[in-house]
Amino acid sequence: MRQEYNNSVIIALGGNAISPKGEAGTIQQQFAHTRRSLKAVMHFVRKKYKICITHGNGPQVGDELLRNELAADQIPPLPLGVLVANTQGAIGYMIQQSLQNALYAEASEREVVTFISQMKVDRNDPAIQNPTKFVGRRYTAEQARKLSLEQGWNIKEQDPGEWRRVVPSPEPLYIFNGKSIKHLYDFGTIMIAGGGGGIPAYNEPDGRLEGLDGVIDKDKTAALLGRIIRAREMFIITDVDNIFTNYGKPEARPIRTATASQIKAYLDEGHFQSGTMAPKIRAALYFLRHHGEKVVITSIARVEEALAGEAGSVLIND
Amino acid sequence: MRQEYNNSVIIALGGNAISPKGEAGTIQQQFAHTRRSLKAVMHFVRKKYKICITHGNGPQVGDELLRNELAADQIPPLPLGVLVANTQGAIGYMIQQSLQNALYAEASEREVVTFISQMKVDRNDPAIQNPTKFVGRRYTAEQARKLSLEQGWNIKEQDPGEWRRVVPSPEPLYIFNGKSIKHLYDFGTIMIAGGGGGIPAYNEPDGRLEGLDGVIDKDKTAALLGRIIRAREMFIITDVDNIFTNYGKPEARPIRTATASQIKAYLDEGHFQSGTMAPKIRAALYFLRHHGEKVVITSIARVEEALAGEAGSVLIND
Repeated sequence: MRQEYNNSVIIALGGNAISPKGEAGTIQQQFAHTRRSLKAVMHFVRKKYKICITHGNGPQVGDELLRNELAADQIPPLPLGVLVANTQGAIGYMIQQSLQNALYAEASEREVVTFISQMKVDRNDPAIQNPTKFVGRRYTAEQARKLSLEQGWNIKEQDPGEWRRVVPSPEPLYIFNGKSIKHLYDFGTIMIAGGGGGIPAYNEPDGRLEGLDGVIDKDKTAALLGRIIRAREMFIITDVDNIFTNYGKPEARPIRTATASQIKAYLDEGHFQSGTMAPKIRAALYFLRHHGEKVVITSIARVEEALAGEAGSVLIND
Repeated sequence: MRQEYNNSVIIALGGNAISPKGEAGTIQQQFAHTRRSLKAVMHFVRKKYKICITHGNGPQVGDELLRNELAADQIPPLPLGVLVANTQGAIGYMIQQSLQNALYAEASEREVVTFISQMKVDRNDPAIQNPTKFVGRRYTAEQARKLSLEQGWNIKEQDPGEWRRVVPSPEPLYIFNGKSIKHLYDFGTIMIAGGGGGIPAYNEPDGRLEGLDGVIDKDKTAALLGRIIRAREMFIITDVDNIFTNYGKPEARPIRTATASQIKAYLDEGHFQSGTMAPKIRAALYFLRHHGEKVVITSIARVEEALAGEAGSVLIND
């Protein structure tokens, strides 16, 4: 497996790379979609990149929450942190097997490994007291009131008449097992780590690590991971081919290349959607501030062209 | 993290190390039990062993099957292979976090990593046509007939009037990602791999890897894994302090030490229970045939004494 690598990348794979419509679907659909998406990852293999992949898990963790809720009268439900671990296992397995098959088809001997990843968070992070991230199914106002009382959940109205559970999404401080991840990344193993953003965990005052019922933004996790393994490039693979100034307005314009300070100015001017693109931009800027040389934001379909410099939005340092 | 290691071990941790009574219980109970069990693993850390851990997942995968069945009218159920991946994630997370806390308490900087592991099996393994391993909940004869028709399951009577699903338990041929596992093991990372025996997968005639709805004996997986990482010792941690000749009979005698050929003779003479201890003995003999120097079979409570040579059954080569 030892060979020379020309470059190094952290890839943040959007949830729609595995589940297109925000619903997990059947396992056959998930596998079929994963296989298609991973063809894009093979472009990095051909160009001899060291590769680490982080992926989303929104639809899958929603399914897990629902299964645990429906079975709660017969089996004690698992907390959210453990369900994130479940989805890291299942999605990692799907990506791993699909990529092994794609590698086999090109006679590559590189191994693909999935790590179960915890992210360190601060137990005093204000986000823990102010949960904002919607997870799981939708409820009526009445169901919501009942569940809030019975389960102690925080439930908020997402769309008129549709209530959902909200959980904290604290800031990740670092990823555990960074030395081991870097050791294998440098060895040439294709790494899958930080899945779903990672399982949040904090230190109790006595130092003991404890899981938190919350979720972490996967793009921020990818940026942290990219820093720790010293990746030169970060690819944020999402459902648009480029990012845009004035997104959603008639005067929207794709951004082809921009420096960190230009992008920071666009961000401050409100060009990017707050719940979707803005966190990716902030993750990109974090990566560029910490050894990162280049961030590319594009779609699965444009990865090959983006690697040739012919598509996607390219962000670089000033 | 780099330091000198004096010895190397593969540990096969019995299911009862996480769930004592064959039932998963609440997550608090599972964590509490895991923490107690992992105190035993710290003895290997103090003696500067390279460490790899394989664990059972019976009660947890049973819970996952039941949740998927109860929610099946609302969410497409996941196949057994994916549920094994789920339990590798969740149990790996529990072991990993508990061990990180134990290491932290002794100021050790060793990392603990969980791999999602597939095991290669032969698609023509006769076990695939002859499923024998009971999984999941118990049904009445009538429920069993209905499920057999609706889901295409194989269902057999385990105890009078109690029917359960049976799945294949094929022979594992090798573990995927062996190079990466060995690379980290030699680095000093404490590895958790092959959980629940691993996810069985076979090659289609075109070479493509495909998951199998089945389970693999975790002790055999541990023996294969011990071979691939070149562990010198294998500890099989189970619910008895020793193995016995004439087990279950009045003339039962504990075995303190035995050579491979003595143990093989006892095995052939039927001294060990076919469903429980005999497969462990076969796994032990496989390990001794392939670079293994010593196998110790004992309970969590006796690990420290066994490491000092004062407890457990010790099997060595002739």
